Amino acid sequence: MTPETMKARVTTPAEREIRIERIFNASRERVWKALTDPALVAQWWGRGNKLVIERMEVQRGGHWRYVEHSSDGVHGFEGRYREVTPPERIVMTFEWDGMPGHVVIETMTLEPLADGRTKLVNTSLFHTVEERDGMLQSGMADGLDQSYAALDQVLARLDSHAGQGAHA
Amino acid sequence: MTPETMKARVTTPAEREIRIERIFNASRERVWKALTDPALVAQWWGRGNKLVIERMEVQRGGHWRYVEHSSDGVHGFEGRYREVTPPERIVMTFEWDGMPGHVVIETMTLEPLADGRTKLVNTSLFHTVEERDGMLQSGMADGLDQSYAALDQVLARLDSHAGQGAHA
Repeated sequence: MTPETMKARVTTPAEREIRIERIFNASRERVWKALTDPALVAQWWGRGNKLVIERMEVQRGGHWRYVEHSSDGVHGFEGRYREVTPPERIVMTFEWDGMPGHVVIETMTLEPLADGRTKLVNTSLFHTVEERDGMLQSGMADGLDQSYAALDQVLARLDSHAGQGAHA
Repeated sequence: MTPETMKARVTTPAEREIRIERIFNASRERVWKALTDPALVAQWWGRGNKLVIERMEVQRGGHWRYVEHSSDGVHGFEGRYREVTPPERIVMTFEWDGMPGHVVIETMTLEPLADGRTKLVNTSLFHTVEERDGMLQSGMADGLDQSYAALDQVLARLDSHAGQGAHA
């Protein structure tokens, strides 16, 4: 896969939405595991920065809170799970401590592709257009590509640890 | 004041909003205190039901969580403060455990009236029209009137404890 195709596709299908699409070279079950197992999330979500997972109750009504330790300081993120349907769909809220009370609804789906890979689609719904545009201007896309590149690495390690091919 | 004028005025100024307006027979400082002091909130928010205030950090970024013990069960509510400007404005999120991850932005302002009373205006912003309409159909207005009637009582007691008139 070339660097070009590794970028997430970011679009704005509606005025308060951001849609992200990214294909991963692993089965849906493995991508699901890497997204919902705290020990694995800690390896990719922070893009190489130390990530402390304070809460991660992956079920309807459960809370999550991550604290990222980066060179520019400590950043907390948190939210709550609205819906958890393994291995295909999670709906949850997302909020950054730097803008407390500005809440995004994240709807993430995993679609198995015929070639064994998995397509992740994430739609973010904001309360206002201004919050959506603020997120777009925050360098979100670059951070996302870094996180997803780290997730690629986690998925590759999952495969090798299991002693199976990526399409198993 | 007649029972008629005691009802909160509920309107829908925009498609994802509910606006509530209610006048209280107390100074802005006293209404602010009754809205932000946990010992006082416990006396009116639950409309006569037992209310356990698990968290109430009234400052930007702080969290709140109330648990109401009513005849039909235990109901948790929570959120986070986005903005706290004493004694005039609070912006915070609101979420009921029964619909986790459905988050409302509440913007509450207190306006001092020339006659010494205080006008409370609360605007609720929902992510979707459906969530707004669901709230309107939930019996919200009746519950609100019960809460505000209990708040009237708290304010009256605050006045008598202070040994001053309502317009002090």
